Amino acid sequence: MSHDINSIPHRRYNILTGEWILCSPHRTKRPWQGKTEKDTTPKKETYDPSCYLCPGNTRSTGDKNPDYKEPYTFINDFSALLIDSPMATQENGLMKAETEVGICKVVCFSPDHSLTLPLMEEEDITKVVKTWKKEYAELGSQDNINYVQIFENKGAIMGCSNPHPHGQIWSQMSIPTEIEKKSKHFKAYWDKNQSSLLGDYIKQELEAKERIIVENKHFVALVPYWAVWPYEIMIAPKKHQQHIGQLNQEEEKAFAEILKKLTIKYDNLFETSFPYSSGIHQIPTDGSDYPEWHWHMSFYPPLLRSATVKKFMVGYEMFAGPQRDITAEQAAKTLQNLSDIHYLKQ
Amino acid sequence: MSHDINSIPHRRYNILTGEWILCSPHRTKRPWQGKTEKDTTPKKETYDPSCYLCPGNTRSTGDKNPDYKEPYTFINDFSALLIDSPMATQENGLMKAETEVGICKVVCFSPDHSLTLPLMEEEDITKVVKTWKKEYAELGSQDNINYVQIFENKGAIMGCSNPHPHGQIWSQMSIPTEIEKKSKHFKAYWDKNQSSLLGDYIKQELEAKERIIVENKHFVALVPYWAVWPYEIMIAPKKHQQHIGQLNQEEEKAFAEILKKLTIKYDNLFETSFPYSSGIHQIPTDGSDYPEWHWHMSFYPPLLRSATVKKFMVGYEMFAGPQRDITAEQAAKTLQNLSDIHYLKQ
Ligand SMILES: O=P(O)(O)O[C@H]1O[C@H](CO)[C@@H](O)[C@H](O)[C@H]1O
Ligand SMILES: O=P(O)(O)O[C@H]1O[C@H](CO)[C@@H](O)[C@H](O)[C@H]1O
Repeated sequence: MSHDINSIPHRRYNILTGEWILCSPHRTKRPWQGKTEKDTTPKKETYDPSCYLCPGNTRSTGDKNPDYKEPYTFINDFSALLIDSPMATQENGLMKAETEVGICKVVCFSPDHSLTLPLMEEEDITKVVKTWKKEYAELGSQDNINYVQIFENKGAIMGCSNPHPHGQIWSQMSIPTEIEKKSKHFKAYWDKNQSSLLGDYIKQELEAKERIIVENKHFVALVPYWAVWPYEIMIAPKKHQQHIGQLNQEEEKAFAEILKKLTIKYDNLFETSFPYSSGIHQIPTDGSDYPEWHWHMSFYPPLLRSATVKKFMVGYEMFAGPQRDITAEQAAKTLQNLSDIHYLKQ
Repeated sequence: MSHDINSIPHRRYNILTGEWILCSPHRTKRPWQGKTEKDTTPKKETYDPSCYLCPGNTRSTGDKNPDYKEPYTFINDFSALLIDSPMATQENGLMKAETEVGICKVVCFSPDHSLTLPLMEEEDITKVVKTWKKEYAELGSQDNINYVQIFENKGAIMGCSNPHPHGQIWSQMSIPTEIEKKSKHFKAYWDKNQSSLLGDYIKQELEAKERIIVENKHFVALVPYWAVWPYEIMIAPKKHQQHIGQLNQEEEKAFAEILKKLTIKYDNLFETSFPYSSGIHQIPTDGSDYPEWHWHMSFYPPLLRSATVKKFMVGYEMFAGPQRDITAEQAAKTLQNLSDIHYLKQ
């Protein structure tokens, strides 16, 4: 007798990191005693005089934002990384440390305080994509900047204290752990197959169709087979590209379209302004080519059951490894069935 | 001119996992605009008729807890792992999955609903230690159980929905990612130096004294040089031991003493019932000796500034790697200066 692995506890292999994810599908059968509340996101004004990201307002450092009309970037007032730190190392027996230099920036997506990506026009999201490209190129070309991490923390539950639509870019000298893990697996596959690990995976997904959420000519958004977060999504270009600097104009628009469609589905899922951390993984800016790399953007949303019930990655997850309660296929099916029109506009 | 690395952004190396942690000490200089509230932990009764962990109460499955007086363990009613799942594998191109079997248990630390580890008597904590030993031996000796993860999620902020003092044990067939990482580094060091990686590190810390929080004849609790969470702590035996089954009676008591002292300091830090996830890392139960391993217990507490202001491990941390805002030494100094007497008993 053959067993359907999707109905029993199993682990799945993440081809990009080489790590396993524990999946416990039977857990969804348990009665849910937690809350299932409706949206409590407050309605926002287009301009908030107390917001330090709104155009024309003064930040806590005394700097004043210009009256910007397009995406606006500036150096983070409380940067975790500084570009002019002196180089130092400490090696004392089993204790080892070294200076990390870098540049942290804030990217305001829009002057309009009330918006979020799903509520923005596609052409305005395209401007955000162009800004990311520009920053990736400019930061990456600076001395000592060998990696550029573009990300967004959305929602208070994700540590974001300002609802003005914005993301961040932290760029730095050393290559972060998560990138090193992926580089290793991309490289091994490339050396063996002269082919893109993620590209080949995407081809397989496009045939299977089961986990695809949104797709256009240039991009696909899918729930990865090895997803960790309940409604985790990966957006990837169909073409083999190493970084967003390679996007042409048509592709920039296609990327913006996918971003809008996906985040609308997200908001519709629990009829709330859906929280997540998103980030783009692409090649280091250390001058190497990394032909094996295939850039992608991932969304890690914490919600599991409703706008107020999240998945906690705690004890077991911290000490052993990630665990999820619904399969990637169940999550994909739910997302697929959601409307393409934002619930606030229906 | 030589620079004090502790005053500039730097990264530190975790000798056990081989990963780096970004540390931004200057960030503590920023003005804090968040909340700094006092304890809101409700006073608990010694018995709660609606608690499914209290003695004599009926659980949602219909099972009734015995009128237990000592630590009580039972199989988790909503186990993420099951012992009788059929063995199956799925290998389909780049998608790979396999059955994971296991046993999940709940460990009630005390019949008294109102307690937590820091408020329990040392001899009652010793009984919890004995229970962990017993479960580790019993679960580990079962077919297909090759690893036993003992952990506690404390506080609602750590996904714990029941305040009755309890922890969990998830045991399983495969070796989790976090254990594999550490095994690799223990082994490499052992092969090279015929010595315990963690043992040697502890010797260095005992000489340096700077990061030691509590110590007795057999154990030390310290803020690891490479700590990720603001007030992360590691407890380790001074003797080279691979697992808690090797603790003799005197050592069990010494472990309980350290647990009590440490968790009292934690509660005193922000005068709240301090949330954390804790877990014991020890050798797999697959029958190998793992002479290189040195077991230890870690505490990952989320709080940063007060009972209500936590550190978010989000965008940058998820996509690049962990980042902290205070140095391990600053955290250690704060913890060292706290009273040994619980604030509720002062
Ligand atoms: O088993 P519990 O207490 O229901 O659940 C808690 O601990 C588990 C193990 O760390 C996590 O997977 C859950 O997300 C968390 O809420
Ligand atoms: O930079 P912010 O928005 O103040 O801070 C937020 O994002 C950072 C980068 O992921 C995290 O380190 C912080 O914990 C989080 O609160």
